Amino acid sequence: MTNLSDIEIANQVEMNPITDIAEKLGIPKESLALYGDYKAKINVSKLENLDKAKRGKLILVTAITPTPAGEGKTTTSVGLVDALTKIGKKAAIALREPSLGPVFGVKGGAAGGGYAQVVPMEDINLHFTGDFHAIGAANNLLAALLDNHIHQGNALGIDSRRITWKRVVDMNDRQLRHIVNGLQGRINGVPREDGYDITVASEIMAVLCLANNITDLKEKLKKIIVAYSFEGTPITAGDLKAEGAMTALLKEAIQPNIVQTLEHSPAFIHGGPFANIAHGCNSVLATKLALQYADYAVTEAGFGADLGAEKFIDIKCRLAELKPDAVVLVATIRALKMHGGMKKADLGTESVEAVLKGLPNLEKHLSNIQEVYGMPVVVAINKFPTDTDAELAAVEKACEERNVEVTLSDVWAKGSEGGIDLANKVIELAEKPNSFSHVYDLSDSIEEKLTKIVQRVYGGKGIELAPSARKELAELEKLGFTEYPICMAKTQYSFSDDATLLGAPKDFTVTIRNLKVSAGAGFIVALTGAVMTMPGLPKSPAAERIDVDAEGNISGLF
Amino acid sequence: MTNLSDIEIANQVEMNPITDIAEKLGIPKESLALYGDYKAKINVSKLENLDKAKRGKLILVTAITPTPAGEGKTTTSVGLVDALTKIGKKAAIALREPSLGPVFGVKGGAAGGGYAQVVPMEDINLHFTGDFHAIGAANNLLAALLDNHIHQGNALGIDSRRITWKRVVDMNDRQLRHIVNGLQGRINGVPREDGYDITVASEIMAVLCLANNITDLKEKLKKIIVAYSFEGTPITAGDLKAEGAMTALLKEAIQPNIVQTLEHSPAFIHGGPFANIAHGCNSVLATKLALQYADYAVTEAGFGADLGAEKFIDIKCRLAELKPDAVVLVATIRALKMHGGMKKADLGTESVEAVLKGLPNLEKHLSNIQEVYGMPVVVAINKFPTDTDAELAAVEKACEERNVEVTLSDVWAKGSEGGIDLANKVIELAEKPNSFSHVYDLSDSIEEKLTKIVQRVYGGKGIELAPSARKELAELEKLGFTEYPICMAKTQYSFSDDATLLGAPKDFTVTIRNLKVSAGAGFIVALTGAVMTMPGLPKSPAAERIDVDAEGNISGLF
Repeated sequence: MTNLSDIEIANQVEMNPITDIAEKLGIPKESLALYGDYKAKINVSKLENLDKAKRGKLILVTAITPTPAGEGKTTTSVGLVDALTKIGKKAAIALREPSLGPVFGVKGGAAGGGYAQVVPMEDINLHFTGDFHAIGAANNLLAALLDNHIHQGNALGIDSRRITWKRVVDMNDRQLRHIVNGLQGRINGVPREDGYDITVASEIMAVLCLANNITDLKEKLKKIIVAYSFEGTPITAGDLKAEGAMTALLKEAIQPNIVQTLEHSPAFIHGGPFANIAHGCNSVLATKLALQYADYAVTEAGFGADLGAEKFIDIKCRLAELKPDAVVLVATIRALKMHGGMKKADLGTESVEAVLKGLPNLEKHLSNIQEVYGMPVVVAINKFPTDTDAELAAVEKACEERNVEVTLSDVWAKGSEGGIDLANKVIELAEKPNSFSHVYDLSDSIEEKLTKIVQRVYGGKGIELAPSARKELAELEKLGFTEYPICMAKTQYSFSDDATLLGAPKDFTVTIRNLKVSAGAGFIVALTGAVMTMPGLPKSPAAERIDVDAEGNISGLF
Repeated sequence: MTNLSDIEIANQVEMNPITDIAEKLGIPKESLALYGDYKAKINVSKLENLDKAKRGKLILVTAITPTPAGEGKTTTSVGLVDALTKIGKKAAIALREPSLGPVFGVKGGAAGGGYAQVVPMEDINLHFTGDFHAIGAANNLLAALLDNHIHQGNALGIDSRRITWKRVVDMNDRQLRHIVNGLQGRINGVPREDGYDITVASEIMAVLCLANNITDLKEKLKKIIVAYSFEGTPITAGDLKAEGAMTALLKEAIQPNIVQTLEHSPAFIHGGPFANIAHGCNSVLATKLALQYADYAVTEAGFGADLGAEKFIDIKCRLAELKPDAVVLVATIRALKMHGGMKKADLGTESVEAVLKGLPNLEKHLSNIQEVYGMPVVVAINKFPTDTDAELAAVEKACEERNVEVTLSDVWAKGSEGGIDLANKVIELAEKPNSFSHVYDLSDSIEEKLTKIVQRVYGGKGIELAPSARKELAELEKLGFTEYPICMAKTQYSFSDDATLLGAPKDFTVTIRNLKVSAGAGFIVALTGAVMTMPGLPKSPAAERIDVDAEGNISGLF
């Protein structure tokens, strides 16, 4: 237990030089580009081919369906890698980079918590090594080239009502959601409706995270569809001759970053695509680096196991030819109680009954991981002070009945010490044979893929295509985008597309409202409702409480 | 002479590790934060107080009135510092950072040319150490906080028709010049007219360049005026409680960057404010660093000596308590011929007559430097292959008649070897006593200051205030902004406010159209015409020809 804030804990720890961290892992010094003493980029083109490299065990950390009570997936992941290191294993973690914009909104910080954090946390949460700024610049260059093309005569016949490419900024700025630009006469562009997304929602973020090298990155960027012509032809970044300059802007950003945990385990933090309109996983290159240089590579995927793990398996693992060796499912007593119908305000009160009522959510995720994904799994209960023995026993009993390992994780309060048992269980689990499988085949039709996800993973009856989606489906099939995997954009708060259906709902139908292709990233986005791609600031933004002293020490950030 | 492109020349040279460059200058290693092997930031809070430090000689490089024929001010500056190093002096250069956006437009690159460049040039011209991205983020955070304040109830009573703060992006993007945002209902902001500037036009850029340390930066940011209330009260960043978070975003950006020239002289490249609506000089901190650690600190200021040198003296030197020791005035035969009435297409033809006709421009600048600014000056003729002996002799004669030193600079083709004579003359000149003076006193009224600049520096009769400026003047006086220096926003192509009046026009009146306060930066901007603060891309953007190979080598950038 601690009363210190995350940044206070982080500041108490003396970091090791990042050159030492990399060296211990065996990463050649000449491949490092330092960003100060504690951050570096790794030039993967100076390494042996990652695809042919020795492979460690790949451990996926995922979670039950999230609730406002929180699960602590990142904290558990960081604690796990520190515990693995503590018991003598060569371990590394691969995580997403946090977005700058939200830091100034409700709360900042997405680098673990308590005694299970990655550091330097204020750098990681602010500009870090500039990756998101580079992605924003590449995104906005493409937008500028597109509008300039129209302004200069529109030789490609772009229909300005069918532009799908938005500008981005790494800021929570609702004022930019819907705009009209190109106003005030012919020297100032061509008037049209437009809008901004937050940088992490850019397709370039997804592209960067799925690219295997610079050439692959450029090829993917080239395929990005930015608009349609009056005849309905897709207009790509390649048509605008944008991919070379965009790649030039991204040539450092594609190189993974290395930092460290509070206990000096190596952490590859790289890329941070949205977990709804994109696949929500850190970069393929970061994961491969962790696999090449460590015996245990711990990684995570956004939202619960229905969304994050499914996309990890069906998009990232498929495109990068990765196979996980074990899965950790993070749960909290508090979240289970919410799934059991308890209100957030009441979560401090013991209720074994609420836990029991919430367990079907945990059990549905477990059965998915075991039976659909074909993976061995351990449940990590992320400990909170309010958890009671009886509540914990209820979860343990349910896991034992399913013959699933379960352990208490206390890494937030104790660091690696709080995760030793989890680490041991993970090691054991990763040695077991598994029958890793994808949820659908790429050769399935789009409708078949969608139906398989809903029936096999979500536990629903099937799908319904809204008229708009039906029209878009026909167009995607006509354009030949049928062999792409599916990226589901669904509420993270329920297995269904209704955020209020907690637990493990059944007999529901998922309505697909829109189908869009991310031709650069290489997936079809299936939207089941409105997705917010540009957040706003709250009434009292966190920015108002952030300060810096004369020596550059930041306060109020977390 | 060379047929190689700038980037080809740059790539031929093996850079020294930046730690060696800094060490040779005497900068303590513990103050460096590396960005790869060849770029670093210098944490000035770890250095002895720069204001109390030993002072080298400060050399200002400025130029005659620019023409489309080009002058080569940066190239001459870089060559000069290399020549000073070559003859055994401890010399350093302080320059502005180039803007990313224009790289993708007509041409990229603002890091010298030929054999007088700063390197790594592609990094310097792309993201460099992220300073401009940080400035953009701080600028856009302030904008988001402002619009969020209105959205959340507008407790400060901000008049959304009187918002002066624009969002920025480091891109040539005309489509964003005039926009309407906050559209589509009450959850998406408050509709209003708005627009974007390019990042270098942000007042934050000027603030950063004039700040002496983090505390000073925060104080200046706090004073930035972003809007006016319905009652006409200025609304500042401080009113929005934005300065702490903005400073947090800028805490690395305020630290000067060190790189090297092709001949391994230290180069402090930091900050790049517009030379019209801002003061057009690199940061005060970079100049002070160069002065503290080198015996000769070479720096430059944007546009010709009427604009750049005047602002350098009246804004930067005044606010930072700097005193230059010598001035280099760069001229080219080609530019003089244009001032003498020759068309650009004819410049390859010898014409002593055109040179003679153009000389009054040079002479007016010389008399300003000597008699108004009170500084010793040397003329550096930046050599072009088409220059003839007779043309050169005409310039030399004119300088001798004025008793002004003149030399031929051939640093573009020959590097330091081409600048030895210039270096020797600069050394000699810097030992001479000078009577350095400002053009006006801060206690002069705004009208007096404007009149003094026009009469003493431009050679005009006086000023005329347009009705809009007259109204703004009354408001500025009412608000008490009378003691600020003036930042003239005037065409760089003429001493007058009419770009077509080349040479040394007389009897003109300068019309002041608008007067605006940059309360954070601490100056009054006097606009004499429309200033373009958001460029556009040309019909065939340079971006289309930029590419990157599999190893990350960029081509087509310059």
